[in-house]
Amino acid sequence: MSLTLADLARHADAKLIGDGQYVIHGVGTLQGAAPGSISFLSNSRYRKYLQITQASAVILQEQDLEYCPVNALVVDNPYLAYARIAALFAPRQEVSAGIHHSAIISPSARVDETASIGPLAVIGDDCVVGPRATIGPGCVLEQGVSVGNDTRLVANVTICWGCRIGARGLIHAGVVIGTDGFGLARERDVYIKVPQLGIVDIGDDVEVGANTTIDRGTIENTIIENGVKLDNQIQIGHNVMIGSNTVIVACSAIAGSTVIGKNCTLAGGVGLVGHIELADGVTITGMSMVTKSLNKPGVYSSGTPLSSSEQWHKNAVRFRQLDDMARRLKQLEKELATLKKG
Amino acid sequence: MSLTLADLARHADAKLIGDGQYVIHGVGTLQGAAPGSISFLSNSRYRKYLQITQASAVILQEQDLEYCPVNALVVDNPYLAYARIAALFAPRQEVSAGIHHSAIISPSARVDETASIGPLAVIGDDCVVGPRATIGPGCVLEQGVSVGNDTRLVANVTICWGCRIGARGLIHAGVVIGTDGFGLARERDVYIKVPQLGIVDIGDDVEVGANTTIDRGTIENTIIENGVKLDNQIQIGHNVMIGSNTVIVACSAIAGSTVIGKNCTLAGGVGLVGHIELADGVTITGMSMVTKSLNKPGVYSSGTPLSSSEQWHKNAVRFRQLDDMARRLKQLEKELATLKKG
Amino acid sequence: MSLTLADLARHADAKLIGDGQYVIHGVGTLQGAAPGSISFLSNSRYRKYLQITQASAVILQEQDLEYCPVNALVVDNPYLAYARIAALFAPRQEVSAGIHHSAIISPSARVDETASIGPLAVIGDDCVVGPRATIGPGCVLEQGVSVGNDTRLVANVTICWGCRIGARGLIHAGVVIGTDGFGLARERDVYIKVPQLGIVDIGDDVEVGANTTIDRGTIENTIIENGVKLDNQIQIGHNVMIGSNTVIVACSAIAGSTVIGKNCTLAGGVGLVGHIELADGVTITGMSMVTKSLNKPGVYSSGTPLSSSEQWHKNAVRFRQLDDMARRLKQLEKELATLKKG
Repeated sequence: MSLTLADLARHADAKLIGDGQYVIHGVGTLQGAAPGSISFLSNSRYRKYLQITQASAVILQEQDLEYCPVNALVVDNPYLAYARIAALFAPRQEVSAGIHHSAIISPSARVDETASIGPLAVIGDDCVVGPRATIGPGCVLEQGVSVGNDTRLVANVTICWGCRIGARGLIHAGVVIGTDGFGLARERDVYIKVPQLGIVDIGDDVEVGANTTIDRGTIENTIIENGVKLDNQIQIGHNVMIGSNTVIVACSAIAGSTVIGKNCTLAGGVGLVGHIELADGVTITGMSMVTKSLNKPGVYSSGTPLSSSEQWHKNAVRFRQLDDMARRLKQLEKELATLKKG
Repeated sequence: MSLTLADLARHADAKLIGDGQYVIHGVGTLQGAAPGSISFLSNSRYRKYLQITQASAVILQEQDLEYCPVNALVVDNPYLAYARIAALFAPRQEVSAGIHHSAIISPSARVDETASIGPLAVIGDDCVVGPRATIGPGCVLEQGVSVGNDTRLVANVTICWGCRIGARGLIHAGVVIGTDGFGLARERDVYIKVPQLGIVDIGDDVEVGANTTIDRGTIENTIIENGVKLDNQIQIGHNVMIGSNTVIVACSAIAGSTVIGKNCTLAGGVGLVGHIELADGVTITGMSMVTKSLNKPGVYSSGTPLSSSEQWHKNAVRFRQLDDMARRLKQLEKELATLKKG
Repeated sequence: MSLTLADLARHADAKLIGDGQYVIHGVGTLQGAAPGSISFLSNSRYRKYLQITQASAVILQEQDLEYCPVNALVVDNPYLAYARIAALFAPRQEVSAGIHHSAIISPSARVDETASIGPLAVIGDDCVVGPRATIGPGCVLEQGVSVGNDTRLVANVTICWGCRIGARGLIHAGVVIGTDGFGLARERDVYIKVPQLGIVDIGDDVEVGANTTIDRGTIENTIIENGVKLDNQIQIGHNVMIGSNTVIVACSAIAGSTVIGKNCTLAGGVGLVGHIELADGVTITGMSMVTKSLNKPGVYSSGTPLSSSEQWHKNAVRFRQLDDMARRLKQLEKELATLKKG
């Protein structure tokens, strides 16, 4: 793929400073870009790399323009403009419409003629695969699954019975959608399984990272709204609801029936207990544990800071004495007040 | 499926209050049930929904009966009774006995004629698949694996060589059982692999959640006893032993050679170091870290509570000063005592 | 496999004490070994088991020799010597060179004639599979993947386009290598995907545990150097670099662009934020959160110790008051000093 800077400026809605006829062949970092590439500067901290870059053009903000020794595309949000331009240079997975001869397709499934079913995929009874959808190699759709237009399942994905995935989704390898929620009723010493009868209902433009698991609902559905982005190895319990455009980073876990608002951000390794609600616009920092509802947007944290293990041991032991320390502190304050009075 | 309330009462061992000939077509929540459905009330907090429910019958305790405007099934444990009744209405995966033409079966494997081997499953040498067992699409059994009667492997499951799974098990998609334990011997700068020669031995009535991984033993076996229920994305190290009817919630990790008793409950995201023992009846709350053996049943926790990040930063910094604070507090107490005496 | 003790002593570079012609048939633990087996003692704590062992020989250090009632192989590092000897007795996966008839191989892929491609594996366009490499059942290689000599992919592994795996690697079931990094650019209310154009470049002698996920780089590559050992369910973000012979235990997560040195050890459940650096030789204890670069080797920790939940609640509440407590403590010290002076 080769495009002129003028083309790229138009595509990214950028102001072009320099040679519009210059031909760009790819993208690169400021430090690593080859001549003929375009790079970007989104954080002025890295401005120093402008001096040494081999890139032939840089996407940047107005404020950094004077430091740029090469062609420039000036925008408000260089990272966003970069994302748009890089997409033009991304190698396309060559996917041809049609069903690979080794795929196993139920006669009752409806696969759009523009969809692509990869080698050794399994499409169950009554499934619906929409226009230009791609079901990658080794994927399994149990019966009654529907996949919207332009959605791609990468490889070895499992979608359990009845679940729905919207349009323009991207479901990475090893994902399991619609597995049974963890519902158990105790009967004397043993546990009886509570049937998991709801589905997972995923909106449009949702990305689900590799090996993430999403449980089906117990009675009603687990719901992932439009534009939600889930990273790898996330666990979503039954009947969770995630509001639109919420972003969840890798290895977070959401227990059953919890409701997360729109435009939230959960950093990596976060845990939410079940049956709580997070307001729209809540941010949780990494590895925090959330045990209560959060009714106001804002940034929330838990955890303890890293130390050398030797220091940590000394302090961690004191954590067990905190309540005692607090009481003794209060007692001291009282006694001192008495002493000062007397 | 349609059943009379009298049928359901018999099935759940419930006292029927109302019209035994009423025909029920499905289940629902109190808020969401359609007419013709049966719902349940297991927590008096939700009693208010009895007034608005469209359900035609409700499973509940004696104490809530007077508030119920519709037919009722009275039991001691409504959630358990619901589980039994919902199972009647759960759609059955249509699985027919026999081997799908696309499955790859070793000539030395013994597959019961009532078992079902799904599309594109791989059954290795000397495997044994018991009566009415179901090996779902894309599952791989390496050589010498045995799967007990009525056990189901959902899809894309991998069972490594020699492992045994008991009867009536349910192994969800993406699970890996019998992968090598993480055994390394250091030789100067590099690590030499310690062969992992034991197997994973799983009892009867065990459920294993999606993408959970269970390591094989180093020399002896990793053992999961009868009735254990494991949620999604759990990691079980080599030579771990888990006692019967213990329940472990998603994303917990148990390091090697640790022994967990019977009837324990580990909430989500819990971590146990290796080579420790948990007594029967231990409960660990979410995201706790367990570094020592627990010899008595009880409920145990670690972690810190959530705050706004601003508040959290101020407090977290002080965690590093805890030992110093404790010493200064003690010093103050001494000095004050001296002052009061003198 | 049967070998004389003299053979084993030669293989493990050990001093033989006893009958060199004794024939050994397998390995076992001190407590569990059958007669005819060889065991090992690597920790003097377990010396008591020497008295009761049924093993016919024990690998041990000089200092434990006098307590050993059976044949002995004396070495400096018994665990390492055991690893070498156990490897001789490990059952070999019978893998025959060649391509299983059910595998789907692109005509443009180059598969060495000594390599083994298992049932229902998928090898994409332009892939290269080296001598004696094994691609297990259900594995998927997207286009342009290369796998080095003697590397084994166990089963249901997915390697995304363009990624490289070196020689003598072991990639366990369910692993996903080269999935898209989590790169999002915000545009008003929604997120635009940032194309992930780099690959994952894995060196020689690397082991990757079951269901671990490794993201491809955004522009440049994610790099795993020679001899790195990754346990199960680890998450490696885009553009992470891991230095040679570093070991990471299960369920740890490394966020994007973080650089980990050589010979580091991360225990289980550790989390590292993005864009930080760990020096060579750093050790992090289990479930710690690392939010800043660590420039010196050493052992580091975070977290709080386990208590009964009742005690924990009392102390955890005080965590929120820590800053206040520290200020009050300082105030008390001041006042007391004044009082003592006055």
